[in-house]
Amino acid sequence: MLQRRHILGLEEMTPEEIQFVLDTADSMKEILSRPIKKVPALRGRTVCTLFYEPSTRTRSSFELAAKILSADTISITPSTSSVVKGESFRDTLLTLQAMGTDLFVIRHQCSGAPLFASKIVSVPVINAGDGMHEHPTQGLLDLLTLRAVKGRLSGLKVTIVGDIAHSRVARSNIWGFTKMGASVRLVGPPTLIPLGLEATGAKVYDRLEPALEGADVVYVLRIQRERMESGLLPSLREYTRLYGITPERLAKLTPADVVVMHPGPMNRGVEISPEVADAGYCVVTEQVANGVALRMALLYLLLGGADGGKE
Amino acid sequence: MLQRRHILGLEEMTPEEIQFVLDTADSMKEILSRPIKKVPALRGRTVCTLFYEPSTRTRSSFELAAKILSADTISITPSTSSVVKGESFRDTLLTLQAMGTDLFVIRHQCSGAPLFASKIVSVPVINAGDGMHEHPTQGLLDLLTLRAVKGRLSGLKVTIVGDIAHSRVARSNIWGFTKMGASVRLVGPPTLIPLGLEATGAKVYDRLEPALEGADVVYVLRIQRERMESGLLPSLREYTRLYGITPERLAKLTPADVVVMHPGPMNRGVEISPEVADAGYCVVTEQVANGVALRMALLYLLLGGADGGKE
Amino acid sequence: MLQRRHILGLEEMTPEEIQFVLDTADSMKEILSRPIKKVPALRGRTVCTLFYEPSTRTRSSFELAAKILSADTISITPSTSSVVKGESFRDTLLTLQAMGTDLFVIRHQCSGAPLFASKIVSVPVINAGDGMHEHPTQGLLDLLTLRAVKGRLSGLKVTIVGDIAHSRVARSNIWGFTKMGASVRLVGPPTLIPLGLEATGAKVYDRLEPALEGADVVYVLRIQRERMESGLLPSLREYTRLYGITPERLAKLTPADVVVMHPGPMNRGVEISPEVADAGYCVVTEQVANGVALRMALLYLLLGGADGGKE
Repeated sequence: MLQRRHILGLEEMTPEEIQFVLDTADSMKEILSRPIKKVPALRGRTVCTLFYEPSTRTRSSFELAAKILSADTISITPSTSSVVKGESFRDTLLTLQAMGTDLFVIRHQCSGAPLFASKIVSVPVINAGDGMHEHPTQGLLDLLTLRAVKGRLSGLKVTIVGDIAHSRVARSNIWGFTKMGASVRLVGPPTLIPLGLEATGAKVYDRLEPALEGADVVYVLRIQRERMESGLLPSLREYTRLYGITPERLAKLTPADVVVMHPGPMNRGVEISPEVADAGYCVVTEQVANGVALRMALLYLLLGGADGGKE
Repeated sequence: MLQRRHILGLEEMTPEEIQFVLDTADSMKEILSRPIKKVPALRGRTVCTLFYEPSTRTRSSFELAAKILSADTISITPSTSSVVKGESFRDTLLTLQAMGTDLFVIRHQCSGAPLFASKIVSVPVINAGDGMHEHPTQGLLDLLTLRAVKGRLSGLKVTIVGDIAHSRVARSNIWGFTKMGASVRLVGPPTLIPLGLEATGAKVYDRLEPALEGADVVYVLRIQRERMESGLLPSLREYTRLYGITPERLAKLTPADVVVMHPGPMNRGVEISPEVADAGYCVVTEQVANGVALRMALLYLLLGGADGGKE
Repeated sequence: MLQRRHILGLEEMTPEEIQFVLDTADSMKEILSRPIKKVPALRGRTVCTLFYEPSTRTRSSFELAAKILSADTISITPSTSSVVKGESFRDTLLTLQAMGTDLFVIRHQCSGAPLFASKIVSVPVINAGDGMHEHPTQGLLDLLTLRAVKGRLSGLKVTIVGDIAHSRVARSNIWGFTKMGASVRLVGPPTLIPLGLEATGAKVYDRLEPALEGADVVYVLRIQRERMESGLLPSLREYTRLYGITPERLAKLTPADVVVMHPGPMNRGVEISPEVADAGYCVVTEQVANGVALRMALLYLLLGGADGGKE
């Protein structure tokens, strides 16, 4: 049913494909609700997580998804790997494939690295975040979460707040939400909004209030402290004053059933106030839980069946 | 049978609870003696080891215990995790719980961190060592080992030697031994003995010889080289001269069936002479082996049964 | 059938033993070709990989081999272990054994460390590379690969090119190839060829061309950039000019069915040209794949059966 062999970005996925992935993830949630969370679907398959950037949540989420499906995992990170010996990315991929990797999950600081990898290896590749390009499994789990909370995606007004320019999460979510029929507004300091985003159908704001007005969903991006050092942000305090999501702003500008999302980890008191982070309408925990189900769905769809994942 | 949902310290456990845990651990030892060390008791459960301090033995011991019971494990350490991104401890816990963690094993440099965690998450928490507070699984495995060697705990004279002030192992053992009816003597350089320990029922000495006299058990603590740098110890050589455990001192002051224990890793030639470390009466290896059985017992008791560990 | 309990080097193995290991590995390859790569042979056994040097391929290869045979693995590396606390190698071994390790896989910067370990513990030890001594599983997988490609080992002319002096791979291969009836030629900069190698039966050259002439197999060693800093190599460029393996040199000096091998990771453009690395006659990928089968065979032979591996 899933035509593609790799998950590299939401830009190239059709609404039908996205919906099929979300439906499969919903059925995976049932497995997660059982007392014994273990099915033999991917027994004897090996999933390799190859992470050139540190990550708790994404890597652990993939590894748990793999283990619940009874796959074996192999976890490669630069600091503990022969990357220190200067092996080329290409040779690392071919080596890990030769060892029996059946599917690669790749995070890399360079945009396009997973695409490159998909042309080198003959097994499926999932992009777990590449540079400032995309983080498609985050985008899909956000859609899964929002669809469960709101019952639909079409027609929702989604406001994404923060450092749009450097965010692969924003990029995947812009594609995901617009493809599924939601309208997307983008807002943040002008230095952190790239040019040309209107081509995606999203609308760009530089002040928070008009962007929040009437929003069904507020998607808060993480602020990287490094942006200040590079002069793109005057100060965190200034950022919080102008763009921080507070209960007051939500109460004044958004409907009573507003939903707040964040990809984590949160800087409480910077881009999101602690009160919002802990409120019932903030679905951060649901996002994390859905992440495991969504990744199970992708592993299953790309590897499942007798010849799944083989060319 | 085990009333509590968390294992945070021996201070709050009753003698009956401790005995029940030790009895369960004894039955786990039988599994460890089989050629195929694997039972399906915790299949489909996920144990998360969250270690903010490095550790081989404790983390590996828990992971092996989990694997023997067929649980899945997820291992999070600060250096490879999003702790580097500054996520709060609370959010890290909630994230890992949302991913499906069924039980947390936590080591932290701050006393009380596991207690804090137990109030945040809804699944069981085991303290794997917190600051200078407690290391309850070490205390329990020491009781398990000594009970097997001596046939009883009640009435034994136990002398704990070394840096009592900074040792969470000492603190758990003082509680454990006194609760189980042993009498405890504490000895070490006055700079490394805290005030107020008599409240536990233990007796404090500043010279080794009277503290050793007639002891059934000598529990040797590890000396941290950092204590010298902070001026609390004159020199390792001086420490060894005054408090090092040697065959001569044992022969002169203790009965023929004395038992020597050490939590490891040992500084051979500092707090313990190599001859003592390798002697038959030094049960360091038994302590390590019993650690796996003890941790299996705790995982089983806290997670076992159809709704074990759920609130 | 395998008489020895440890695999420490090819120097002490007989041709019959080597052949038996290779034959067993061939039958493991069949398991690797199945859609579900999992057999229960070593269920309930624990393999500990204890690596004092970083490594992707070797450690992952052993862990995958163990998992395919359903063994549990425990992975200890200095940076995440209590090695930082200064525990002795001996105590680390005894601790890991007491926890239930059934077989050790050890990599160490010191030649002889696995031999030392084999005298401390009562379970099998496999040397995964020790100092400048041996890397026997690499040597065996190279023999396995070459036997599959050429149909035989006896009578082949093998030329090993590079830094012979510092290479444990070279040392294992010299023993392996000569024992199996191949003739071995060694060539590299005179500063990187140790004295006394003729005793093994290998012939030493200092110019590449005569060493390559008529070779059935060219085994290219990795050049370590550190050798330049220590003054043993003038420059990488000079090395490449004199000893780099290029299509031109192979075409001019070797038969049409020449085979090129490399232990990886390759420095493309230094010791091996990219064209050679990617050519069909370069069997680097086959070497990696065979590594998993070969390590499965060793784990199975050393641990298999009801009392395998027990003294």
